[in-house]
Amino acid sequence: MILKERLFTPGPTQLLPSAQLAMAGAAMHHRTPQFRTLYGKVLSDLRIFIGTRNDVVLFTSSGTGAMEAAVSNLTSRGDKVMVISAGKFGERWESLARAYGCQVDVAHAPYGQTVSPLQVKEKLSPEHAVVYMQATESSTGIRHDVESIACMLKGTNTLLVVDAITGLGTTNVKVDDWGIDVIIGGSQKAVMTPPGLAYCAVSDRAWERMDHANNARYYFDLRKERKNAAKGESSYTPSTVLVAGLSAALDYLREQGGGDLALGRDLLIANAEIAAAMTRSAVEALGLRLFSGDAPASALTAIASPDGIDSSNIVKLFRHRFGAVIANGQGEMKGRLFRIAHLGFYDYLDTISVIGALEHVLVEIGLTVKLGAGMRAAQQTFSKFLLEQAVA
Amino acid sequence: MILKERLFTPGPTQLLPSAQLAMAGAAMHHRTPQFRTLYGKVLSDLRIFIGTRNDVVLFTSSGTGAMEAAVSNLTSRGDKVMVISAGKFGERWESLARAYGCQVDVAHAPYGQTVSPLQVKEKLSPEHAVVYMQATESSTGIRHDVESIACMLKGTNTLLVVDAITGLGTTNVKVDDWGIDVIIGGSQKAVMTPPGLAYCAVSDRAWERMDHANNARYYFDLRKERKNAAKGESSYTPSTVLVAGLSAALDYLREQGGGDLALGRDLLIANAEIAAAMTRSAVEALGLRLFSGDAPASALTAIASPDGIDSSNIVKLFRHRFGAVIANGQGEMKGRLFRIAHLGFYDYLDTISVIGALEHVLVEIGLTVKLGAGMRAAQQTFSKFLLEQAVA
Repeated sequence: MILKERLFTPGPTQLLPSAQLAMAGAAMHHRTPQFRTLYGKVLSDLRIFIGTRNDVVLFTSSGTGAMEAAVSNLTSRGDKVMVISAGKFGERWESLARAYGCQVDVAHAPYGQTVSPLQVKEKLSPEHAVVYMQATESSTGIRHDVESIACMLKGTNTLLVVDAITGLGTTNVKVDDWGIDVIIGGSQKAVMTPPGLAYCAVSDRAWERMDHANNARYYFDLRKERKNAAKGESSYTPSTVLVAGLSAALDYLREQGGGDLALGRDLLIANAEIAAAMTRSAVEALGLRLFSGDAPASALTAIASPDGIDSSNIVKLFRHRFGAVIANGQGEMKGRLFRIAHLGFYDYLDTISVIGALEHVLVEIGLTVKLGAGMRAAQQTFSKFLLEQAVA
Repeated sequence: MILKERLFTPGPTQLLPSAQLAMAGAAMHHRTPQFRTLYGKVLSDLRIFIGTRNDVVLFTSSGTGAMEAAVSNLTSRGDKVMVISAGKFGERWESLARAYGCQVDVAHAPYGQTVSPLQVKEKLSPEHAVVYMQATESSTGIRHDVESIACMLKGTNTLLVVDAITGLGTTNVKVDDWGIDVIIGGSQKAVMTPPGLAYCAVSDRAWERMDHANNARYYFDLRKERKNAAKGESSYTPSTVLVAGLSAALDYLREQGGGDLALGRDLLIANAEIAAAMTRSAVEALGLRLFSGDAPASALTAIASPDGIDSSNIVKLFRHRFGAVIANGQGEMKGRLFRIAHLGFYDYLDTISVIGALEHVLVEIGLTVKLGAGMRAAQQTFSKFLLEQAVA
């Protein structure tokens, strides 16, 4: 059969066709009234998408660039910070903070588990300048309890920075109510556009902190970027085409919400939650083990590789038999799990069909699988959502 | 009449249609054999395009990101460096080096002039860890004498870093022969793709320097990027679509060179040189003053605004009457000059027509201009090139 290449990876994700078209058609200069209007519109839409009154800034970089900004702009060499780490992206916070000369305390959980608020509480001291964490740890598919940790930090001088690169648009985050000082997102995730843009919303007290934080920063200088953003500009040449694509994607979400972008975002979150629940039902019906235990994220589902099976083979079979690109484990988890993403532009047909493919792959690697059992379980979960919706 | 929007700015520049199409069609994941092949091919093509045997690395960022990499990776706090500065981008080197705690000596020339090798020689001491300069200072349209300065540094321990963001593909730079340790380019310049990618080639002795340079770096870590590039990967999610666009543009240049990318690049440089020479002839025939004096770059032509005229009005008239986006002066030069670019995808029709538009604009601001005089001068210059070519 024809193989259509489809991404089921936690970023890059499937692209919105209208965003692709907007990108192909965009050829404007970035210091023009036309681009200023577009840029101002995107920043203002991102504010709604994130759900914050805080100022939003945008960088042409991967999400890691905005993570670096949240370290270099908020810390000075020798500062004590805490990192909540339960996977590869938690470890990225550790390396970043160390690269900038911070003393790093780590609240740690093994891969596949979540760091409990209690663990954080035990380690937390008033000396910690910043707590760095993920909303969703995409390397293992778990979610952290951002709300409880934010609550714990209320009234203290410790800032809270949340990498929500796969969290935004897949999980409900009340940025201002909870008091998240910096929240970070990326273009290649739930917002359905290609990689190349990172964005973050920054609280008043985080802006104040920058007056004293003296680590080196230039390209990722948040204050300079905010100053220019107020004029509808970026400090350095931005990726104009990606900004045009992102604008189209945010328009699509607004349209989905009947003119209300915040509602469109909520529907997008519900979409991920349903797709993730369907996938989890299928995984269980097929006798596989969810890697992410009792705190699974909606952005993606991480599945432990069956005993004795290298998950690299599963990933390869998905690609060769079905054109479907799913993700292997990362780092030390390579070969031990595989990940199917639901963040962004994924619908019922995507969700049910990748489960169908999974069943064939399991048969091919030698497992005993009743074809259709996973899909049926997913359908039952979908029907339950339909019913709940009808009742509501 | 219909207004077609056309960029005559020194970046972003006019886009190659096949690059736009490649971008719209690219939706691949970055950790796949397919992307690794593409990425490896682009890095290898960039090597040919730059004309070097040195390793090339690519960042998803504006060109400033690669400039920052050349500071953060090569220096330690307190290092003495020299910056060659005659415009806004020279000043960017100064700010960057200061942001990373370097002691900065500046070899300086006023806007519109070039820094002479003699000036550099007088200031240079063995204590300078690095000399930072531009090949082309795009804020004023001048070119610096990279070759002489490189020659002066041969046999010393001082590294030479050249921002050739507008220089590559518009001027002949013998990177390895001259001994340029880091040379930097950007996607939105002569290579005809949108902004969002920066690249640089790094010499052996620059790689060695990084063992001792201890300034903080993470996203722009050159050694990490080189290590991953060897596997066909980038350290962080790259802008996949821009990489696909850049690949298509490099294919176009190879095709122009009859299968030889280096020849295609040489033809591209000759193209910019002819367009720039045509524009300069027109400027003189129209009684205007070249801002860039006796060392004009081929990437762009900077023209002093006529006495008593704010160049912002000229820029606006170009846009409103003709849809042509030209560049104003930057920073302190705003209002005092305007800039017409020739770098990348510009042909005879672009060149001659923007001169036609210029003549109407000059009439509209009240100057006495003989319509057609500038275009005719440009034609004569073009004919001279044709003749030289016929003889050769």
